[in-house]
Amino acid sequence: MTEFFNVLAPDEARALLLNHIVPVSGQEILPTAEALGRVTAVALHAPQPLPTFRRSTMDGYAVRAADTFGASGSLPAFLDVIGEVPMGQAAQVILGTGQAALVHTGGMIPETADAVVQVEQTQIVGTESKSPPYEIEVFKSVAQGENILQVGEDVPTGQEILPAGHILRPQDLGGLLALGITEVAVRKKPRVVILATGDEVIPPEEETEPGQIRDINSYTVSGQVIAAGGVPVRGGIIADNLAALQEAAEEGLADADMLVMSAGSSVSFRDMTAQVIAGLGRPGVLFHGVATRPGKPTIGGVAGGKPVIGLPGNPVSAMVQFDMLGRPSIHRLLGISHPVQQGLIWANLTINTASQSGREDYIPVRLEKTAGGYQATPVFGKSNLIYTLVNADGLMKIPLDNGGLLAGELVEVRLF
Amino acid sequence: MTEFFNVLAPDEARALLLNHIVPVSGQEILPTAEALGRVTAVALHAPQPLPTFRRSTMDGYAVRAADTFGASGSLPAFLDVIGEVPMGQAAQVILGTGQAALVHTGGMIPETADAVVQVEQTQIVGTESKSPPYEIEVFKSVAQGENILQVGEDVPTGQEILPAGHILRPQDLGGLLALGITEVAVRKKPRVVILATGDEVIPPEEETEPGQIRDINSYTVSGQVIAAGGVPVRGGIIADNLAALQEAAEEGLADADMLVMSAGSSVSFRDMTAQVIAGLGRPGVLFHGVATRPGKPTIGGVAGGKPVIGLPGNPVSAMVQFDMLGRPSIHRLLGISHPVQQGLIWANLTINTASQSGREDYIPVRLEKTAGGYQATPVFGKSNLIYTLVNADGLMKIPLDNGGLLAGELVEVRLF
Repeated sequence: MTEFFNVLAPDEARALLLNHIVPVSGQEILPTAEALGRVTAVALHAPQPLPTFRRSTMDGYAVRAADTFGASGSLPAFLDVIGEVPMGQAAQVILGTGQAALVHTGGMIPETADAVVQVEQTQIVGTESKSPPYEIEVFKSVAQGENILQVGEDVPTGQEILPAGHILRPQDLGGLLALGITEVAVRKKPRVVILATGDEVIPPEEETEPGQIRDINSYTVSGQVIAAGGVPVRGGIIADNLAALQEAAEEGLADADMLVMSAGSSVSFRDMTAQVIAGLGRPGVLFHGVATRPGKPTIGGVAGGKPVIGLPGNPVSAMVQFDMLGRPSIHRLLGISHPVQQGLIWANLTINTASQSGREDYIPVRLEKTAGGYQATPVFGKSNLIYTLVNADGLMKIPLDNGGLLAGELVEVRLF
Repeated sequence: MTEFFNVLAPDEARALLLNHIVPVSGQEILPTAEALGRVTAVALHAPQPLPTFRRSTMDGYAVRAADTFGASGSLPAFLDVIGEVPMGQAAQVILGTGQAALVHTGGMIPETADAVVQVEQTQIVGTESKSPPYEIEVFKSVAQGENILQVGEDVPTGQEILPAGHILRPQDLGGLLALGITEVAVRKKPRVVILATGDEVIPPEEETEPGQIRDINSYTVSGQVIAAGGVPVRGGIIADNLAALQEAAEEGLADADMLVMSAGSSVSFRDMTAQVIAGLGRPGVLFHGVATRPGKPTIGGVAGGKPVIGLPGNPVSAMVQFDMLGRPSIHRLLGISHPVQQGLIWANLTINTASQSGREDYIPVRLEKTAGGYQATPVFGKSNLIYTLVNADGLMKIPLDNGGLLAGELVEVRLF
């Protein structure tokens, strides 16, 4: 197979890849309290209303609203406080006309009451006692329902509370537990096998000889896989020949949901990676090159619904391209709905920065917070130096159709 | 102790709290590959240069630059390719005048070469063989150092590569491993004890009786603690009296780095929480109220360098205030330097939204991505309903001195 170059615009490449991915079907049941960051496998519905009883939103007095109509500072209404609703217990008092009950924030509203008067709008008459019974003056009228949470006002019985494909945040755990949902079905985390290739690549714990470098892509991509919600499986460093890579790729993918290969960026390496992807299954290679810098020689494919990505060996390219293609692939495997773009910052560029029209550029920048907002300064260095990313806070995007940016322009920085 | 109200602006409250916190001193040694998201305990320096040998950034020929000077398409330079530098091995060839060696991207540059000519700028003369020796024509001159990564160009020996207090990202792990740093000292995760109070509060796994609600703050705050880099320790639901809360707080804090109490929001509860904080150690209560909604009745204090936060019982207030005060407190305990604000989105507000000047408002919003950017729509409902947060993508901030926002205005939304 000879090399072909099917270079796509980045958005097009990503859409093509995502369209061929089939979400993982496996799910597991977890205690809700331990499901932070996991993705719901099914839609969830409220088994009961929330709240389950009418609650006061204020410290004050449960009243019959009609008894307060017309009350004002100069013409207060007088009510008999006949009891108190203790926190955590059912309200036992029954209010007749002209009667009220002391309630606390969150306390239950007696059946015959329909509003709460804030304690600040009242005054106890003729006693120092703070325990009912006593008489109060009410200085303000309240409407029916005022200062009361109605049954089911937060969520009514049967309502869909979370869709399938939702990433569970702290408030989601709280919302589920409030309804007594103490276990939740979540999608299995996709397993992502990562292979490194290159005769010059050795494990990080070994000493390098001249000509050798340590494998770092296996580890940077592992970190990115974890951050995206997957489980990285490092397949190690594969010998630099077609048969070995083919075998490792087939073996890896059989047991996983996604495969990432980081190979050299020479033409022969790319050719070999494309050939391996083509041999893994249908539809095979979807694109061979993305109109971005860094990372143009990236290869994207799908085999039997599983994404397979061939990253350049250059560690900066590998990370940027994994972010552009690998992260959304994991999200698609997880079936995540309604994704919100995370980690964007707008900043003012500090110096003119050139680009090339027809290519989307990602330039590492350092952010500085000033009174006028964030300032973004490009981190200099050849684009394949890992420390340009270590020294950066994020990546500044120069769009496809833009020939460069001027100092002072507002730019979009993706925290990275 | 009677209640006093020392209500501060949110920025002021946060600064006061952070200024009194003493970072945790404990550290632990982790394999670098497993240190994602942890915080460096000490500054790290490069034990060797990166790269350790001169590397080619292109597929092509290592040459003596002077041999190519003046070369062009119409007047090529002729060079003898005397060998190839195999990947992963030291370059053995020594170039004399007029000689070149085949090199691959990432390969080692022979000692006597000082530039690389891209293969695309050359042509093999008079042979079909792709293995040296053969002669090439060079169509473009190269400058000294062109297409070469110099020794230490990524990072020189001895350079500080990461400061103390840095959150380790995937590229940081890669940068450390590239230098053979396979273990790293990180700060111990702060232990945050969380206590819930309220006679009406029961554990989530129990069935509620009228007047009772399930504890959710212990779980939402746990999730927020994890997201901020701490370890949550749920201390359970404490009986609603001063002695019990005092004992639980003292016991909890003795064994932890931070204490969070979520109590009712009635005056007597707040009074009790303030009294407990005052009794835990110096300086005690720092502020009693923050000019925000939701969450005004929040209490902040420090005891012996450890932050102690009294959150309102209302779950929305509790989450928003933990985000404003608790999260940065954990970051301060971790000694995090150079924090970059995460998770901000700018969006266009879809409807007019009122606020009150002199108060910072946080309003749950749902985000919708459109061709023109994100649209933010407030989620309606009383401010103490947990499902307003479940149904929201983030919180829209209305600044202290702002009386409200108009439809169409660009607003800052913090993903939440």
